[in-house]
Amino acid sequence: MNDLSRLSFNQMTSGKCGLGEVVDACVRRGVPWIGPWRHAMGDAPAEAGRLIREAGLWVSSLCRGGMFPGASAEERRRRIEDNLRAIDEAAAVGTDLLVLVNGPAPGRDIDGARQMVVDGIGEIVGYAEQCGVRLGVEPLHPMFAADRSVVVTMGEANGIAERFDSPWVGVVVDVYHVWWDPTVYMEIARAGKRIFAFHVSDWIVPTPDILMGRGMMGDGVIEIRRLRKAVEAAGYEGPIEVEIFNEALWARPVDEVVGLVAERFLEFV
Amino acid sequence: MNDLSRLSFNQMTSGKCGLGEVVDACVRRGVPWIGPWRHAMGDAPAEAGRLIREAGLWVSSLCRGGMFPGASAEERRRRIEDNLRAIDEAAAVGTDLLVLVNGPAPGRDIDGARQMVVDGIGEIVGYAEQCGVRLGVEPLHPMFAADRSVVVTMGEANGIAERFDSPWVGVVVDVYHVWWDPTVYMEIARAGKRIFAFHVSDWIVPTPDILMGRGMMGDGVIEIRRLRKAVEAAGYEGPIEVEIFNEALWARPVDEVVGLVAERFLEFV
Repeated sequence: MNDLSRLSFNQMTSGKCGLGEVVDACVRRGVPWIGPWRHAMGDAPAEAGRLIREAGLWVSSLCRGGMFPGASAEERRRRIEDNLRAIDEAAAVGTDLLVLVNGPAPGRDIDGARQMVVDGIGEIVGYAEQCGVRLGVEPLHPMFAADRSVVVTMGEANGIAERFDSPWVGVVVDVYHVWWDPTVYMEIARAGKRIFAFHVSDWIVPTPDILMGRGMMGDGVIEIRRLRKAVEAAGYEGPIEVEIFNEALWARPVDEVVGLVAERFLEFV
Repeated sequence: MNDLSRLSFNQMTSGKCGLGEVVDACVRRGVPWIGPWRHAMGDAPAEAGRLIREAGLWVSSLCRGGMFPGASAEERRRRIEDNLRAIDEAAAVGTDLLVLVNGPAPGRDIDGARQMVVDGIGEIVGYAEQCGVRLGVEPLHPMFAADRSVVVTMGEANGIAERFDSPWVGVVVDVYHVWWDPTVYMEIARAGKRIFAFHVSDWIVPTPDILMGRGMMGDGVIEIRRLRKAVEAAGYEGPIEVEIFNEALWARPVDEVVGLVAERFLEFV
């Protein structure tokens, strides 16, 4: 498993850097893939894509679409429109994958919000297909169920993907979000070719923060290699994206962070 | 549903008070049940039980046994011995229910640790039966998978209880730990008469702290009454324990806290 050819550096792992700096660091450290975020590309996704391509890198995915539930039909309509823009931006930056973080419930009705997610994907999948952009449903850790995503398990994400039964709707497996799940290996096998992306980081003990407490691979308790083997056994052969939200890491120089990511990728992923 | 006859006040909801103070507040506020913790009874569970009984209260459960996984056979043996003491203490304080918080993995092997939990329960269930103490397997929220419990879903807890298929092994449903789970209503129905306890609190947004961030019923997003109706439809008729770990609540006078719990219980549970 030991080379960097499948390593992708998610931009938010160096959250305070501009895209140009991250691209340069990836080039210097031999990391061939990058995962940009919409908010960091501003209004110029095509320009961001050109910058990345001209540096010789590829884009593994765009983060993020989703956030479908809303209290009113009008609010949900605005979310749909934002997702259509996100699909355009994915195509413009040069990736065929938009990661969906599906959003919290507007009130206490979590199952109602889950239905809004399914309805929302239904509204955008046709346009995604036209644009050649696949939609990756990412289950988030259940601790984000109230503020980021009502989709919190691989089982649920698989259920959504199976409902659409389309090559344009699949799942994103992020070890940080799913490692705790006693059904995770069964659900990875069930997902099979519907796995559109694989993200890695680590769960450190004690966790310093709910949102910003992710760890570098090897510093925590997740069986990362076991999970990698499982997604590969299921048929996944794409890039492996390192996505770590951690204030301490953000404070370090991007070149050092990309270097450490590459080193830990070879050792622990 | 509107009376206090099934309300139990878990002692840790006023975490800085002695048992006597909590008992007095429950009596004044008309709360008939109490849930003590082992560490707060010191070496005198029988005395604590007498104090509670003489005040006219009943004990809903004792927190907590469990913590089965250990790196060595010797370590696991010490955990078993501690659980046997916990069973004695449950009987001594006057309850037929010991809540099990099952413990984290000693390393990265979470499935191995899950097996240690099953093995550990197997070691103590005979003694529990002799003492007339039921064992309640409590799944914790997945955010505690690395430091408190490898048992993190109702499905997993049900699987353990079904393996034993004994009136002495069941599950504890705490809304805070299970509300996010898309399978929770199915798993509550599956648990049926194996539900030994029902705990309530709320999930507040944003969550102020991983361990100490629980909210008062009504202040958060959990569909508490829907979950109560589900456990009752499954056959549960026992006490409903309010267990809230929250620093801000700990800073308030116990009498006020018990009063607020009673009020919110009537309105939201």
